[in-house]
Amino acid sequence: MARQRAVVLLSGGLDSTTTLAIAAAEGFAAHALGFRYGQRHRVELRAARRVAQRAGVPYRELSVPLDRLGGSALTDDDIPVPLGREDEEIGEGVPLTYVPARNTVFLALALAWAEVLGSRDIFIGVNAVDYSGYPDCRPDFVQAFERTANLGTRSGAEGRPVRIHAPLLRHSKAQIIRRGLELGVDYSLTSSCYAPSPKGLACSRCDACRLRIRGFAEAGVEDPVRYSPGG
Amino acid sequence: MARQRAVVLLSGGLDSTTTLAIAAAEGFAAHALGFRYGQRHRVELRAARRVAQRAGVPYRELSVPLDRLGGSALTDDDIPVPLGREDEEIGEGVPLTYVPARNTVFLALALAWAEVLGSRDIFIGVNAVDYSGYPDCRPDFVQAFERTANLGTRSGAEGRPVRIHAPLLRHSKAQIIRRGLELGVDYSLTSSCYAPSPKGLACSRCDACRLRIRGFAEAGVEDPVRYSPGG
Repeated sequence: MARQRAVVLLSGGLDSTTTLAIAAAEGFAAHALGFRYGQRHRVELRAARRVAQRAGVPYRELSVPLDRLGGSALTDDDIPVPLGREDEEIGEGVPLTYVPARNTVFLALALAWAEVLGSRDIFIGVNAVDYSGYPDCRPDFVQAFERTANLGTRSGAEGRPVRIHAPLLRHSKAQIIRRGLELGVDYSLTSSCYAPSPKGLACSRCDACRLRIRGFAEAGVEDPVRYSPGG
Repeated sequence: MARQRAVVLLSGGLDSTTTLAIAAAEGFAAHALGFRYGQRHRVELRAARRVAQRAGVPYRELSVPLDRLGGSALTDDDIPVPLGREDEEIGEGVPLTYVPARNTVFLALALAWAEVLGSRDIFIGVNAVDYSGYPDCRPDFVQAFERTANLGTRSGAEGRPVRIHAPLLRHSKAQIIRRGLELGVDYSLTSSCYAPSPKGLACSRCDACRLRIRGFAEAGVEDPVRYSPGG
């Protein structure tokens, strides 16, 4: 029997790469979807392509001009990416790297592609434990989007409900890494940094790097990604 | 006191143009948002620009490559736009002109822009009475999206809820036209047709033309738009 298709949001970071491996392990024919949304850290798009290629799954990249709307350190050169020391706590509240409505936009486009593919399953690597305080990474958001998806699509209206899978929602970063390694994920292909060097080395000081570094330390595994010396 | 800003989805058709006039009449500083999504009927984009200019409101147009995903007669040249006689009923079920997840995608991008503008109000001209059977035009969908918007954004998370206004939801086409005329809408600027002639004349036979023609007839008003002779 043909495997069911699933659309997997893939940024080339640690979480979405692990999510892709989980979707495949659950028996889905994964279709990876990446976005060129004006992010400064374009290096993540190269990572997403590498990851999809290694996994042997189709990869599609859509352009969505979120940078034309502005409002985030990740898409606007005039707003610096906040950097901290490795041992500092991640700040409280919604950080400057929050991109307005990003996951709503990405899930909406994943939903469009899923419908065209005849797929009823969408995977997203959001995580509400070791995370940066983004509102669109919380369980209630995922649940509300699923309901919207079922009311706003042909498949939902015709009684074939869509499921939004967020398998990492309640995992710590260390748990995510251990699960990925069990599934054979090669984390050297991934890129998490918000402010990589021109050569693509990770900064070690943005929230994403700090969460990643701590996760590998807690998992007791070496992070195969290269960091800028003295970052 | 400065007026509150609102984002208004504007396609240049009858419903969204009326919605823009309603937002202004309610005292909002409207910001119109249009989409180049690979629609065949690009003439609607010119209409949207004309309407926004006449209303004296800022207009922004974003490119979203829904045509790269396919699946609709409106974005795929290989799927013909269904045409019928004027007196035929609009078909049952979800039609071929349904664009997968379109309103979810458009509302998500409107939400992103609203957040950047510091606006908490989004207007959409969906209508569940004289409509084409699109699932993403129903009241439940609008309500579910509003909930998603409030869970997935900074403003929602910080206690400044977003409202999705759909003032035409329960209006007939004739009621919409009468309301627009009261507000001074110039319907000669609008374009509803899914399959306009190369010169931009409306076909009179697609679902959108047929709903429009019937609406003007019921309202007892002449439609100022030009139709192809013998369409």
